[in-house]
Amino acid sequence: MRHFLTLKDFSKEEILDIISLAVKIKKKAKKGKFKPYMKDKVLGMIFEKSSTRTRVSFEVGIHQLGGKGLFLSSDDIQLGRGEPLKDTARVLSRMVDMVMIRTFGQERLEEFAKYSTVPLISGLSDKYHPMQLLADYMTICEHGKDKGLIAAYVGDGNNIANSWLMLASKIGFELRISTPKGYEPNQEVLKDAHKFAKKSGAKIVLHDTPQDAVRGAGVITSDTWVSMGQESEKAKRQSDFQGFIVDDKMMALAQKEAMFLHCLPAYRGFEVSDEVFEAHSEEIFDEAENRLHVQKAVMVWLDRHR
Amino acid sequence: MRHFLTLKDFSKEEILDIISLAVKIKKKAKKGKFKPYMKDKVLGMIFEKSSTRTRVSFEVGIHQLGGKGLFLSSDDIQLGRGEPLKDTARVLSRMVDMVMIRTFGQERLEEFAKYSTVPLISGLSDKYHPMQLLADYMTICEHGKDKGLIAAYVGDGNNIANSWLMLASKIGFELRISTPKGYEPNQEVLKDAHKFAKKSGAKIVLHDTPQDAVRGAGVITSDTWVSMGQESEKAKRQSDFQGFIVDDKMMALAQKEAMFLHCLPAYRGFEVSDEVFEAHSEEIFDEAENRLHVQKAVMVWLDRHR
Amino acid sequence: MRHFLTLKDFSKEEILDIISLAVKIKKKAKKGKFKPYMKDKVLGMIFEKSSTRTRVSFEVGIHQLGGKGLFLSSDDIQLGRGEPLKDTARVLSRMVDMVMIRTFGQERLEEFAKYSTVPLISGLSDKYHPMQLLADYMTICEHGKDKGLIAAYVGDGNNIANSWLMLASKIGFELRISTPKGYEPNQEVLKDAHKFAKKSGAKIVLHDTPQDAVRGAGVITSDTWVSMGQESEKAKRQSDFQGFIVDDKMMALAQKEAMFLHCLPAYRGFEVSDEVFEAHSEEIFDEAENRLHVQKAVMVWLDRHR
Repeated sequence: MRHFLTLKDFSKEEILDIISLAVKIKKKAKKGKFKPYMKDKVLGMIFEKSSTRTRVSFEVGIHQLGGKGLFLSSDDIQLGRGEPLKDTARVLSRMVDMVMIRTFGQERLEEFAKYSTVPLISGLSDKYHPMQLLADYMTICEHGKDKGLIAAYVGDGNNIANSWLMLASKIGFELRISTPKGYEPNQEVLKDAHKFAKKSGAKIVLHDTPQDAVRGAGVITSDTWVSMGQESEKAKRQSDFQGFIVDDKMMALAQKEAMFLHCLPAYRGFEVSDEVFEAHSEEIFDEAENRLHVQKAVMVWLDRHR
Repeated sequence: MRHFLTLKDFSKEEILDIISLAVKIKKKAKKGKFKPYMKDKVLGMIFEKSSTRTRVSFEVGIHQLGGKGLFLSSDDIQLGRGEPLKDTARVLSRMVDMVMIRTFGQERLEEFAKYSTVPLISGLSDKYHPMQLLADYMTICEHGKDKGLIAAYVGDGNNIANSWLMLASKIGFELRISTPKGYEPNQEVLKDAHKFAKKSGAKIVLHDTPQDAVRGAGVITSDTWVSMGQESEKAKRQSDFQGFIVDDKMMALAQKEAMFLHCLPAYRGFEVSDEVFEAHSEEIFDEAENRLHVQKAVMVWLDRHR
Repeated sequence: MRHFLTLKDFSKEEILDIISLAVKIKKKAKKGKFKPYMKDKVLGMIFEKSSTRTRVSFEVGIHQLGGKGLFLSSDDIQLGRGEPLKDTARVLSRMVDMVMIRTFGQERLEEFAKYSTVPLISGLSDKYHPMQLLADYMTICEHGKDKGLIAAYVGDGNNIANSWLMLASKIGFELRISTPKGYEPNQEVLKDAHKFAKKSGAKIVLHDTPQDAVRGAGVITSDTWVSMGQESEKAKRQSDFQGFIVDDKMMALAQKEAMFLHCLPAYRGFEVSDEVFEAHSEEIFDEAENRLHVQKAVMVWLDRHR
């Protein structure tokens, strides 16, 4: 049995296999065809952090696979009243067929997985957001940008940045990251990325200025400067991130026809200008939609590998 | 593609068509027969205001149509954290097949509809409550009270009063409204109603006293004096609405066998006496049940007109 | 039509009938076979108190029966804004096929049942927790401990203790209860239990010390000392319950191979030691899982008896 807690645990072949399944599932869905890969199965979905896209994409996704999603917010269940995660894991393992958790610490996912007898999927943690990156790479492939890919991540060295490091180093493309000083990606993740890059041929570079990162890149991406739980640091962060906005001037440095991706919600005038957002909205909403399809592929893949 | 944000956008023929479909769907449901009109389809349901009837009727309704309802409270999704409605509209359009929103301002519905590529249904706004009025008119028809109908609305000139104005002026029956001074229905809605009445032959009259409105009417209806969000005005409102209670004395002025309708929740001793409520409870709970059936008809109708 | 608000209303034969159906349903489920006993049916689930196990077991359960569970928290519906329970009962009766309520006072269940035209199931009240006790007895039977059963309940004379009294006195086994002074089970429930015991041959004994209760027993059970809503009494309760922890020393007094059951969540170091909990975790999580199966049996049974 496999869990999906981070891209770190998956090989290039496995990642491409899942994306290829996602593309196939999406094509059929567009024709109104839904194969009941997970008939009678139940996906428990625990949200310790709320979300539009993760919630809707998983709940619609398992439904389209013929199964049922069971939405559990922290308020609805005993987790919020201090039940040990290991007890919740053992109870849910007896009642549902797969679990998705959106939470704070990655260690909470690891603790749950240790006691779970059903596959666990990460719907985001403070460290990683693997489902988002699968959707991003699927979108890049769909738009034919995966050959000779140079991707530039501009902004906060957060869970999205960490996940780009895992994706690039596993797949083997060039990833440039530029963050303000003090907001670099996780050092341990960087070390892992450099290790995986040796095998895959990926090129991982941290740039001092966002301009250097973006210059000549085929895919530009950013994320909010103030993630959930960081609201108290808002003013300081907005000041520290001055100059990191992706606007028309920044995009002009990239390849002509470069894509702009954003995992949403997007704060115009901060990490991205309204002009760039709206000019690339089709790509961005393709990216959002692909969460739905790629997560169906992940569920089917995990169900097959138990 | 059509949205259902207000009765204003629908013709008499369309309204009667939907009610006739609702009656047909209800009859089959009573025999335990549920035709999967919306198999594999997902209805996203966004509640910015909570509700028993809207919630249960839509979620059970889409299930009985073979589809799935996805309940999203403001707390569960990013809307509550300031994501622009237009982004939520575009994301949901990629993942679900239809959307219902229960919200505050009618302009929020209009903004969502502008960006949505799937049909949107209003589950109530501060201005209108079209689903309730469809259920009300369906109940009136079922009870054989639609011929020569004179309806009297007594109380607050709120979203329910506005919707009665739209219903009456489209269908072409006599509607009398009596509210305390300062609580009249929306002036723009009144103007629209008078315009539509010219075509339909409806008679729209505002009466100074509830007694004048009720006298000789075949359907009497009222609504809470203190809607959600108006709790701070409670004492003032209860004082201003003195004399507008629908009690046995008031009902004695109406036609013998007149119906009393109420969209619930009902506050006994305020807008309605316990005696009147319980004497008409079968009609009132028929009215509540018809939300279920008429909304199924609305969903099927919108699905056919995309 | 029958409701399931307490074991008091059910005969020994009916209880055993339900458990036997649960065992049958569980066996099929383990082979991935789910008979759609309740196809197209909807179970409304009202939670005035939140819960992991009640929520997941009912929502997964009705899904496995081919129906749909509709989760309603107090916040989501008008109940929280003072709608009379009798109105909610009458509205829901028109829209759903069965209702489960988890609430505070048993009288709320009785009030709802009085106005409901569909079967109502208790998912816990301050007085009783019948679904838990059905799961407990099912687990005892599965583990072959029902013959010559001596059960010992150690701790708070709460809804779980009251339900053990009902179960034992209906089935006819020996039940020993030991609580601190002032925490005895409900006197009226005790009186009922003694009355039923005369017919069934049950032996109901209150012991002054937990040691006396546990000595030679085949099933030991306890529950949290601080139930939901009692948080303000926490310090006093933890002091009053000193000596009532079920630890290895206590378990050593019981029969060799005695079971330990716990309805969860479990607070290690208070009502049970971590050692006892983990040594008996398979039994405890069997017990949790059996909520799922026995509740499916209850729903099918009630559906058949309408």
